[in-house]
Amino acid sequence: MDNTDQFSFEDLFAQNAAPPRTIGTTKRGKYDFAVAYPDPGSMPLDGLIDGLRIGLAEDGNDMALYYNSQGYAPLRQLVVDKLARDRGIYVTPEEIILGSGSSAPIHMIIETLVDPGDVVITADFFYAGTLGTLRRFGADVRGVDCDQEGMIPDSVETTIQNAIAAAKKPKFIYIVPTFQNPQGWTMPLARRQALLDLAQKYGIAILEDDCYIDLRYDGTDVASIYSLDETGCVAYVGSFSKILAPGLRMGYMTAPRPMLERVLGAKSGGAVNTFAAIAVHRFATDHMYSHIEEINEIGRTKRNTMLAALDEHFAETGATWSKPDGGLYLWLTMPAGTDITTIRDQVLDRADVGYLTGVSFAADGVSGRNCARLCYGYNSPAEITQGIALLADAFRHFGVI
Amino acid sequence: MDNTDQFSFEDLFAQNAAPPRTIGTTKRGKYDFAVAYPDPGSMPLDGLIDGLRIGLAEDGNDMALYYNSQGYAPLRQLVVDKLARDRGIYVTPEEIILGSGSSAPIHMIIETLVDPGDVVITADFFYAGTLGTLRRFGADVRGVDCDQEGMIPDSVETTIQNAIAAAKKPKFIYIVPTFQNPQGWTMPLARRQALLDLAQKYGIAILEDDCYIDLRYDGTDVASIYSLDETGCVAYVGSFSKILAPGLRMGYMTAPRPMLERVLGAKSGGAVNTFAAIAVHRFATDHMYSHIEEINEIGRTKRNTMLAALDEHFAETGATWSKPDGGLYLWLTMPAGTDITTIRDQVLDRADVGYLTGVSFAADGVSGRNCARLCYGYNSPAEITQGIALLADAFRHFGVI
Repeated sequence: MDNTDQFSFEDLFAQNAAPPRTIGTTKRGKYDFAVAYPDPGSMPLDGLIDGLRIGLAEDGNDMALYYNSQGYAPLRQLVVDKLARDRGIYVTPEEIILGSGSSAPIHMIIETLVDPGDVVITADFFYAGTLGTLRRFGADVRGVDCDQEGMIPDSVETTIQNAIAAAKKPKFIYIVPTFQNPQGWTMPLARRQALLDLAQKYGIAILEDDCYIDLRYDGTDVASIYSLDETGCVAYVGSFSKILAPGLRMGYMTAPRPMLERVLGAKSGGAVNTFAAIAVHRFATDHMYSHIEEINEIGRTKRNTMLAALDEHFAETGATWSKPDGGLYLWLTMPAGTDITTIRDQVLDRADVGYLTGVSFAADGVSGRNCARLCYGYNSPAEITQGIALLADAFRHFGVI
Repeated sequence: MDNTDQFSFEDLFAQNAAPPRTIGTTKRGKYDFAVAYPDPGSMPLDGLIDGLRIGLAEDGNDMALYYNSQGYAPLRQLVVDKLARDRGIYVTPEEIILGSGSSAPIHMIIETLVDPGDVVITADFFYAGTLGTLRRFGADVRGVDCDQEGMIPDSVETTIQNAIAAAKKPKFIYIVPTFQNPQGWTMPLARRQALLDLAQKYGIAILEDDCYIDLRYDGTDVASIYSLDETGCVAYVGSFSKILAPGLRMGYMTAPRPMLERVLGAKSGGAVNTFAAIAVHRFATDHMYSHIEEINEIGRTKRNTMLAALDEHFAETGATWSKPDGGLYLWLTMPAGTDITTIRDQVLDRADVGYLTGVSFAADGVSGRNCARLCYGYNSPAEITQGIALLADAFRHFGVI
């Protein structure tokens, strides 16, 4: 195309169109603490191929179909069984929609609920993917204060009341209650109940994102908010990305029926990938729980390794960090006034260590210049130890510690 | 959930939310002429598994990543090579976005261009998936008259002028120029050039949907509209669904860079399924063109079988039908005033024959009660012959012929 400047799309874009995103790839560090990748060596690739072969021999003709938009029915049944066993959630396969990861269901739920200017309540720092989608739909994102037990109910209620006082009743509360991304905390039962009580009191929905629930290294599970609810105000999303492989793009959601029907109306691209769904279904039927045990051994070791390395290299710096009971990351907080955001790309160039700073997760878009999410899923324990040492060196070099 | 009526989502839905879609499955006929499925027996499932095994051995670590939103890079390179070889389109892998089928890219392009009330120009009858998405975004869909060579340029220009006269300049023209869905015609070169000239004259974009291009049984390919354009006004989508399997959900798009960047901004769910992309890439690298030859032998036989059956059972009825040079369906037109829409479900119950009527594809939402799209991809030739006979019987029973 020689003369693309002869025609301009600029006048044609919808007023509400997403802002452009630059084409191209992002540089990854050798010590890639930036993204919540799982351990690559433990992905059950051979098991998935075996499952696929068995599944295609049985259900191969389904590949010729434009499948029901809710997705491959046997996998929806497996999700139903998993939710009943693990999360106290009792639904039918008709009440499950499979989607590309958990991000596609989250996108559809946001699209279904949010008009520009609508208030959505979140943690002060939360999953950057959801934050990006909320912004793309023009949400007025209001973060509430959190401590080591998650969202503080008084802060939630004050935020709700302030919005209502300004005639902007919040639409919903977005929450990752277990191994919260990026802060790593888990909300205990009392906090979950308090959050639910507030939602019901004020007529606000909850979007519960439980995508890390299976990655528990210590302690015991806390009941899902969905299971505590008797009024039908909670939509719930989960994912196989964290326990099998992100590249499978296999997530799911359930919600009260009026919400499900709206989400189905918004769904594009037809059913989730049947090819991947068949592989996940056949593998998970026999091996899901043993595989989870196996990867949690690995995750526990990696988390402990990163905690030990932080003890060694950051104990004297005034930094603090979360000690999560599971998940793929922890939250490093450098002393107030420190800026590790400006130097992020320089640290990546110098030390080959990648991280995301608090700003990427900040509800207000500006806080958290002294905070970083450090993911320990991808690198080996030896690399984690090296990487944290190199990170401390780089911070020292740039005058941060 | 016992008391879902205690909480109501109704007040929370966005003003612009999609209308609800009923949960559940649609009944399929034994003689399933309703949906453009490919031949199930010819899907290269073993080849895809073999390709996947080889690809995962080489690139398996990519499954641990949240891949670049544009999708698995080697498959984008393969698309680039295919577009250059087959469609005279010369782009780079950076200018390709992979998506779930072609419907996801189409959805993103529409989302990027259409505000409620915006005029979009289409064929009088066109792909129901695109029609549904246009409606979902509130487009003012204006169908133009078509003949056996596709959109009639005078009708296109009149429609454009009428819209401009009402201060509603059209945003874009949606067109499946080859083996048009559902009518089966292919636009010859002169028509394509005329359409492009009109788009350029009035500053309107074109969305060229080329998803059936590989399924040619007779004749030779006509140049893509994209390749004729020197101004950068065309976005182009294609798909592997029709040549490999719909369940792979593997489509692609290219467009001028400003459009690509907006589409990337609107993309949710991250990259297309890496698992399926690896399988498609490795299989297609060695076997795509031989496989296309093989399935086109089958498709040609099935098309000829349906044409012969129509000759046998509908020649005396006053019906006419298209004789497409490729693709998976033809377009049956019963005499004006005939209604085969009202009886559709009864025909399915009585004869086990499924079809979609013109109304499902009508730009105006009401025309085509006497028309049906008949797909010949899924059933065997013997079933096609039986099914057309049963369809004629049923039409006779219900007094249509």
